[in-house]
Amino acid sequence: MKPHAAATALLKRRLGARVDLSEDGRWAASFDSSKISFLPAAVVTPRQEADIGVVLALANRRRVPVTVRGRGTTLMGSAAPVNGGWVIDMRGLNRIRIDGDAGLAHVGAGATTAAVQRAADGQGWFYPPDPSSKEYCTIGGNIACNAGGMHGGKYGVTRDFVVALRGFLPTGEFVEWGTATKKFAAGFNLRDLWIGSEGMLGVVTGAVLKLIPRPAARWTLLTSFADEVSALAAARALFRQRVQPAICEFLDRESVLCAERATGRTVFPGQAGRPVILLELAGSVAEVDDLKVDVLAWAQRTARAHQEARSRAEVEQLWAVRRKCSGAMFELGDAKLNEDIVVPMRQYEKFARFLLRLKRASGLPIPTFGHVADGNLHVNIMYHRDNRAEARAAERAVQRLMETVVALGGAISGEHGIGLAKTPFLRLQHRPAQVRAMQAVKHALDPRGILNPGKMFDVVRIWQHPRLDLKLPWDHK
Amino acid sequence: MKPHAAATALLKRRLGARVDLSEDGRWAASFDSSKISFLPAAVVTPRQEADIGVVLALANRRRVPVTVRGRGTTLMGSAAPVNGGWVIDMRGLNRIRIDGDAGLAHVGAGATTAAVQRAADGQGWFYPPDPSSKEYCTIGGNIACNAGGMHGGKYGVTRDFVVALRGFLPTGEFVEWGTATKKFAAGFNLRDLWIGSEGMLGVVTGAVLKLIPRPAARWTLLTSFADEVSALAAARALFRQRVQPAICEFLDRESVLCAERATGRTVFPGQAGRPVILLELAGSVAEVDDLKVDVLAWAQRTARAHQEARSRAEVEQLWAVRRKCSGAMFELGDAKLNEDIVVPMRQYEKFARFLLRLKRASGLPIPTFGHVADGNLHVNIMYHRDNRAEARAAERAVQRLMETVVALGGAISGEHGIGLAKTPFLRLQHRPAQVRAMQAVKHALDPRGILNPGKMFDVVRIWQHPRLDLKLPWDHK
Repeated sequence: MKPHAAATALLKRRLGARVDLSEDGRWAASFDSSKISFLPAAVVTPRQEADIGVVLALANRRRVPVTVRGRGTTLMGSAAPVNGGWVIDMRGLNRIRIDGDAGLAHVGAGATTAAVQRAADGQGWFYPPDPSSKEYCTIGGNIACNAGGMHGGKYGVTRDFVVALRGFLPTGEFVEWGTATKKFAAGFNLRDLWIGSEGMLGVVTGAVLKLIPRPAARWTLLTSFADEVSALAAARALFRQRVQPAICEFLDRESVLCAERATGRTVFPGQAGRPVILLELAGSVAEVDDLKVDVLAWAQRTARAHQEARSRAEVEQLWAVRRKCSGAMFELGDAKLNEDIVVPMRQYEKFARFLLRLKRASGLPIPTFGHVADGNLHVNIMYHRDNRAEARAAERAVQRLMETVVALGGAISGEHGIGLAKTPFLRLQHRPAQVRAMQAVKHALDPRGILNPGKMFDVVRIWQHPRLDLKLPWDHK
Repeated sequence: MKPHAAATALLKRRLGARVDLSEDGRWAASFDSSKISFLPAAVVTPRQEADIGVVLALANRRRVPVTVRGRGTTLMGSAAPVNGGWVIDMRGLNRIRIDGDAGLAHVGAGATTAAVQRAADGQGWFYPPDPSSKEYCTIGGNIACNAGGMHGGKYGVTRDFVVALRGFLPTGEFVEWGTATKKFAAGFNLRDLWIGSEGMLGVVTGAVLKLIPRPAARWTLLTSFADEVSALAAARALFRQRVQPAICEFLDRESVLCAERATGRTVFPGQAGRPVILLELAGSVAEVDDLKVDVLAWAQRTARAHQEARSRAEVEQLWAVRRKCSGAMFELGDAKLNEDIVVPMRQYEKFARFLLRLKRASGLPIPTFGHVADGNLHVNIMYHRDNRAEARAAERAVQRLMETVVALGGAISGEHGIGLAKTPFLRLQHRPAQVRAMQAVKHALDPRGILNPGKMFDVVRIWQHPRLDLKLPWDHK
């Protein structure tokens, strides 16, 4: 008999058409962007919030694993139902209501990040967190992994914009953490404990998000540097002046070369193959005009060359390059370990030198780009899956990378979370007492261990698992 | 034999002069700003972080209650050692180091908020959270209750500025939550669970705080309104325009009258006894100049009168009034229930009308002022302690206030926390399942219940306890 067959039959009787038992439906929910497939026993598509309470109460009683998913854009395997059981697909709960007076968005967990941004924009407000998959990924997923994006340095990440959550405990009991207000100091803060807990402590069905006034003006500058060390040193010099760009993206030489090969154009004419920093100021017209002066003086002082975007089209062209580099990397290998590490600012130059050594020692291309306003760099270790030597070199490189990041006082993940993929490194970041405390909290809130089991604490070497060979809509072209 | 005598003797042997067993020392640590005294068995003044690990390991083994305090400015009784045991006084751990490149402050839990602000200011940075006791209160205390202040609406509260914490589990094990970086997505977020947990889940010894560039310009405007309803409606209209003042303080008629009696001057010449909103814009010179135009047009439209501060002296004079009103209230009664409730913006007018009814029905003066950019209002129910009828009316009024705030979708506390004083209302805010979840987390992290026992969950009617008759340095004059 199939696992959880009796409980699943009972669930089907309770929720009828909202429970999909078909092979196709279950397969589609069997993997996330990590592309490792684990077939669940059923997929539930709730029509209303209360359905989730029904699912959880039953799952808890019968000890059925429950994995919650939005669109499944996570690269970490956080939404893969490793232990089977039931998947809850939240995409139907996608209501969005903007409270223009208070600057708050009331949203269902299934609303996409881009839809929230557009709704806010329609009323003159701005929701800054912007994971690169924002047209697809959901607010619920963003909350689960505390998603970030390019705006983190100045504005913050998902956590910084959540004022309240609603949802269910694993027992199926409805709860609300926080109110639709910017201040709340009543009781333990389970709201923020849930944020970033990757669906392991509770199920988020909705959130109240803080918005900020939409910046009236934006200004984009591309700067080019002799090498990575001087680019990162220059970034640090800019922040030391207390200039906070809304976006500040760094691309190392290999990332630039990838983008150039993919587009057939030089990223910065006359500066082919040089690392760049692409930055954007945002604010009131007057504010941006003010800051521009400082930034241009900084570029004059530190960069080999710099170039302002003089039109909307030029701005688009500059950002297109940044977006292209990630997909273009697959010319360097058919497998990528994309590690969203964080490095403290004072360690930038040291880290840049370490990366050069790592590339040399591993013999692998490791194009690196990311958000230098908050130290969150995407280190992409490229290799060929079928080449045993390369695969082993990649595994060694990621281990050395994580050890170094922690030794420098940084983080093994800035915006992706742990899921399955980073489980081998959790204990580099956290002392045994810290991991025990987390596990105690997990056990306290989910004593039967039904919510997203097998994640975070069990060590899984995801790169050793067979991977589905398919292209997802948000995969970089 | 005294409670915990053997364990206390052992502690004394271990830590020597760092353990104070004197009557005077214990008395001084027996109360916080709630002025209800509970004598502890010993007071520990750690010389170094590791001392705290020693205290906790011993306390946990011997089941001795441990209450951590900074300066004890909390009004809620959160730092009162209700069950005796040991008090740890953190004021010695007051190191401050500013990382000017990254815009971070590395601080010991015992550093005062004002000292952190001054250190940041010295390098061109700004730390916005500003509880009114900031010259006295410590960052550790701010973290324990998630302190706010006047800057909450635009900039956020303590939680929004903490990127990492260090400290100890109740077992005495050292832990670090987060890194000195603006992004972190590795493992459950116990950092934010600790923040606002009022010393019940762990002991914070140090924090890394996020700073923002110091605003170059400030501009102050005083506005006067016909009544409270139109003042709060006007505030709402300002926020609807997406104008975010750095500070936006409301004083109702009774608060204004208190200030006027205390200073012998009208708050707003020609507008005696009218509610006011005092606001401050902050940002770059250009930004403030821009916003001023909108704010003046708004004042023209909505206020009875408005008045710009034209000099530093005038600015000081305006803020002096705001600071005076709280202390001046003691002319209306010798006892005050200061309730830092939060009301969602869309409920402002409804709440203003409720307050008028509450004043009438209770027959008590209830001067109210607070932070209208985030809905956090201080409702001060004044009465005479020895007047039984007034005391009973005050108790009924606070109950009705809390019920109404929750019914309006608000919070029973925005920045003070629960401590002892708000325990009768915790279950108005939180469903039984929510309280059970909090208690489960408490039990998971502090299985022997040694950290700040008797707070949050046990219902205490603090106003029925005898109160010390003394003046503390931060008591309003």
